[in-house]
Amino acid sequence: MSTRTAVLTPQAEDFPQWYQDVLAKAELAENGPVRGTMVIRPYGYALWERMQAEVDRRIKAAGAENVYFPLFIPQAHLHREAEHVEGFSPELAIVTHAGGRELSEPVVVRPTSETVFGEFMAKWVQSYRDLPLLLNQWANVVRWELRPRIFLRTSEFLWQEGHTAHATRADASAYARRIHNDVYLAFLRDVLALPVQAGLKTDVERFAGAMDTLTCEVMMRDGKALQMATSHELGQNFARAFEIAYTDADGERQLCWTTSWGSSTRMVGGLIMAHGDDGGLRLPPAVAPVQAVVVAVKDDPDTTAAVARIEQELAAGGVRCRRDERTDVGLGRRLTDWELKGVPVRVEVGPRDLRAGVASVVRRDNAERAATALDGVGRFVRDALEDAQRALAAEALARATQRTRSVDSVEAAIDAARDGFALLPWSRCGRQGERRLNEHGVSVRCLQTLAGAVPDGLEGDDDLVAVVARAY
Amino acid sequence: MSTRTAVLTPQAEDFPQWYQDVLAKAELAENGPVRGTMVIRPYGYALWERMQAEVDRRIKAAGAENVYFPLFIPQAHLHREAEHVEGFSPELAIVTHAGGRELSEPVVVRPTSETVFGEFMAKWVQSYRDLPLLLNQWANVVRWELRPRIFLRTSEFLWQEGHTAHATRADASAYARRIHNDVYLAFLRDVLALPVQAGLKTDVERFAGAMDTLTCEVMMRDGKALQMATSHELGQNFARAFEIAYTDADGERQLCWTTSWGSSTRMVGGLIMAHGDDGGLRLPPAVAPVQAVVVAVKDDPDTTAAVARIEQELAAGGVRCRRDERTDVGLGRRLTDWELKGVPVRVEVGPRDLRAGVASVVRRDNAERAATALDGVGRFVRDALEDAQRALAAEALARATQRTRSVDSVEAAIDAARDGFALLPWSRCGRQGERRLNEHGVSVRCLQTLAGAVPDGLEGDDDLVAVVARAY
Repeated sequence: MSTRTAVLTPQAEDFPQWYQDVLAKAELAENGPVRGTMVIRPYGYALWERMQAEVDRRIKAAGAENVYFPLFIPQAHLHREAEHVEGFSPELAIVTHAGGRELSEPVVVRPTSETVFGEFMAKWVQSYRDLPLLLNQWANVVRWELRPRIFLRTSEFLWQEGHTAHATRADASAYARRIHNDVYLAFLRDVLALPVQAGLKTDVERFAGAMDTLTCEVMMRDGKALQMATSHELGQNFARAFEIAYTDADGERQLCWTTSWGSSTRMVGGLIMAHGDDGGLRLPPAVAPVQAVVVAVKDDPDTTAAVARIEQELAAGGVRCRRDERTDVGLGRRLTDWELKGVPVRVEVGPRDLRAGVASVVRRDNAERAATALDGVGRFVRDALEDAQRALAAEALARATQRTRSVDSVEAAIDAARDGFALLPWSRCGRQGERRLNEHGVSVRCLQTLAGAVPDGLEGDDDLVAVVARAY
Repeated sequence: MSTRTAVLTPQAEDFPQWYQDVLAKAELAENGPVRGTMVIRPYGYALWERMQAEVDRRIKAAGAENVYFPLFIPQAHLHREAEHVEGFSPELAIVTHAGGRELSEPVVVRPTSETVFGEFMAKWVQSYRDLPLLLNQWANVVRWELRPRIFLRTSEFLWQEGHTAHATRADASAYARRIHNDVYLAFLRDVLALPVQAGLKTDVERFAGAMDTLTCEVMMRDGKALQMATSHELGQNFARAFEIAYTDADGERQLCWTTSWGSSTRMVGGLIMAHGDDGGLRLPPAVAPVQAVVVAVKDDPDTTAAVARIEQELAAGGVRCRRDERTDVGLGRRLTDWELKGVPVRVEVGPRDLRAGVASVVRRDNAERAATALDGVGRFVRDALEDAQRALAAEALARATQRTRSVDSVEAAIDAARDGFALLPWSRCGRQGERRLNEHGVSVRCLQTLAGAVPDGLEGDDDLVAVVARAY
C-alpha cells in the first residue's frame, strides 16, 4: 500500500490500462516498429531470462536435450498437416524474396518448428535403442496478430517447444505427465508462486491432433484465466504423419508414440497480472532479477559506506542486489520506481538510521516496514525474501480460492465467470453447455477429477468437474 | 592417435571434407530443409549453450544488460544507413505476405538489429544520467548465403550483438577494449584454449562506419584464419545517424559516442577446426558438454556397479560426466564414438581392471592411457581434465607459432599464407600491398604493434605489423 500518488491506472478502474501502464513505467517492454512485435527492455528480459533458466533446468532434469531448427520452413512442408493445406494461413509470415531475387518456392517463418521436428525425428529414430528421443527448442516463432498485446499475444514471441518420441503409449503418456508436473507445475508453484488449476482440455479446446492436452491455468487479478503451459499426448497421429517409426527388438517396424509441450513469454504477462497491484509489479523473490535494493536516503559519506557494506553482505549471502545512490533524484521518486519494478525488499539507509544503528527494511508484497540492527541485516533480508515468496503464493491462493465458486448450472457458471472461476460438474455441462458458455465469452479451461487432480483420460467423464472462466 | 580404422577423411587429404565428416559423425549439425540453413543437433547445441553461457557471463560482468528486439524490421528503417539505400540488398530476406494478405510495406528479417538498437537507444538516452547505456542481444539473424557452410556461413545464424552509448570518446574507446579483452580474448583463451592474433582492422577490412575495429583472429589446423569476434568503436557516426544524444550536466545537447561488438555460432566452427584431429573433435574440458565418459567394457554386475560408483564420484566432484553401458554395441565402435565426439577423458572399466583394483583413464587430446587405482579415480580425472585444457592450449599455440613466419615482402607473405600466417611490416605492405595480397586470396587479418599488441589507433602506422593469412 503506497502512500504516494498513483502513477498507474488503478486495477479496479481499468485492468487492461493498468497492464499497459505497468509495462511502460516498470520499463518491461514496448511496441516494436512492426505492428504486433515487441521490444523487451533490460528489466523485462532479465525476468524472462530467469524464467527461462528455471524452466530449462527442469527440462534438462527430465532428460530432454536442446536443439535448434531453422527459422525458415519450405512452404510445402506445412502441407503435411491437414489444417494447413489451403493457401496462406492468415497467421503465417511468408518470405518471397531473398538473395536479391524472388524465391522459386516461398518460405514460411516458423509458427512452430513442429513439422521440422517431425521430419528430423523420423531420420534420427531408427531402432528401439534410439528411444525415447527427448528434444526441446528455445526459439522465436511468428504468428501474425491483428490484435496484439505485449507478452500475451504478439506476432513474434519467444518460447520453448518440446517434442518426444517413445516406444509405447504408456511411456509417452508418463512423459507428458512428467513434463506437466515436474517442469511446468513445479516452476509455476515454486518459482512464480502461482496457484494452478491443472487438468485436461475438452475435445473443443484440445490441441489439434492431440489425444489429450494437459494444461496449467492461472487466475489473473481480474478473475480471468491465463493458460501458462500445455503438454500434449499425440498418440501415434504425429508419428504417422511424419513416419516416425522404429525397429523393435524382434526386428519389427513399429510406429512411435509422441508428445509435445510448450511455454512462452506469455508467462511474463501472467506473472505481471497475477501478482501486480496498484503500486506496480510484485515479483516473487525466486524470479526477481533484483531481490533487494539498498537505498541511500541522503548523500552522506557514512551512508555511502553503510550502503556499500550492506550490499556486499547481501551479495555474499547469495542475494541478487543493487545499490541506489542516485541522491540527486528525489527519494520519493526513487522509492516509487523500485515499487513499480516490484523489487521484493528495500533496505533504506540514512544518517538518522545509522545513528540508531539500524536500517529500514521494507517488503514490497505487504508494505511492512521494520527497523533492523545493522549487524543482522543480511539474515533479516534473507528471511524477508523467503517469507515474501511464501506470502505471495499464499495471497494468490487465497484470492483464487475466494474467487472460485462451485456452481451447478451453466447459467450460474457464466455469472461466476464475471470475476472469477466456476467449478461446474461436467455432467451438468457437456458439449452443449460448453457451446452456451462460449457464446457468452466463457470457456471450459480444463476438466479435473472431483479432487481437483488431472484425470487419467476423458473416458467416463461423468465424474469430472469443469473449470470455467473467461480467458486471455 | 587412434589405432582403429579411420571414419573421417584425413585432414591432410581434404580439410573441408574432414570438417563435413566431423559435423555428421559427431552428430553436431546438418543442413536444414531450406538451402543455407542448419539444424543444430543436441551435441552441437550443448556446445553452443556452454559457449553462450561463458560469453554471456563475461558480458554481464562488463555491465551490459540483455534485451530483445523484434525479428522484423520495416524496410524503410534500413534506408537510414547509406549502404542499404537501393532496393533489396542481396543478403536480405523479405516478408511480403502475412496475416493472409500482401503487406502494404514489406518487412525485412533482421540481418542485424543495429537499426532498431539505434532507434530505441535514441529514445532511451535523454540525460547524461542515462549513460553509459550498455546493451546486448542474443538472437538469430538472417543473411542469405549462396555458398553456405555449416556454422561458418549460414543463411541464419545465432549470435550476440552488443551496442553501447557513452558520453565521451575515451569512455567508448575504453569500453570497446574492455569487451575485446575481458569478454572475447578471455573467453577464447580460457575456455576455448585458443591462441589469438588480436589487432585492429585496416581501412579496407574495417566495419563500415567504424573508426576502429578490434578483431580476434585464430589459426585453424589448415593454416587459415577465422575471425572469431569483433568490437567496433563507432565514434559519433552511428549516434549522428540515429540522433542518439544526451543533455549534459550544463544542459547542453551532446551527441553520444557508441560501440558495437559481436560473436556468433561461427565460433563453433572455429573450435572444431582449431583443435580437431583425424580422430574427430578434441574439446577443451572447459567447454565440453561431457567432460568424462565412464565406459563399461563388458556387461557384468561388478562392472555396472563400479561404473555407477565412478560416475557418482565424478559428478559429486563437479565433473560433467556420462555412463556408457551400451554393451550390446561393440566396444571399438563405442570408443570411436566418444573419440569422434571429443570427450576429453574416458574411464574404461572391465572385469580384468576391477580384479586389479584399477580403471583405465584415456585422454582424448594426446591418447595417453594410464591405469589408476579405483579409489583415487576422481582426483585423477580432475587432474587429467586440467592438464588436457592446458595441453590443448599449448599445442594450439605451438602450432600457430610454428606456422607463423616473419616476412619482409608482400610476395613472401603470399607464399607463407599457403599454410599459415605471415607477419609483415605494414611499412612494406600498405594499401597497395594489401590490394596485391587480396588478388591472391590473401588478406590482412589485423595490424599489431611490434610487440604483438593491439595498437591504440592507426595513426603513425609505420611501426605496425600486418598479420597476413588466407581466411574463412
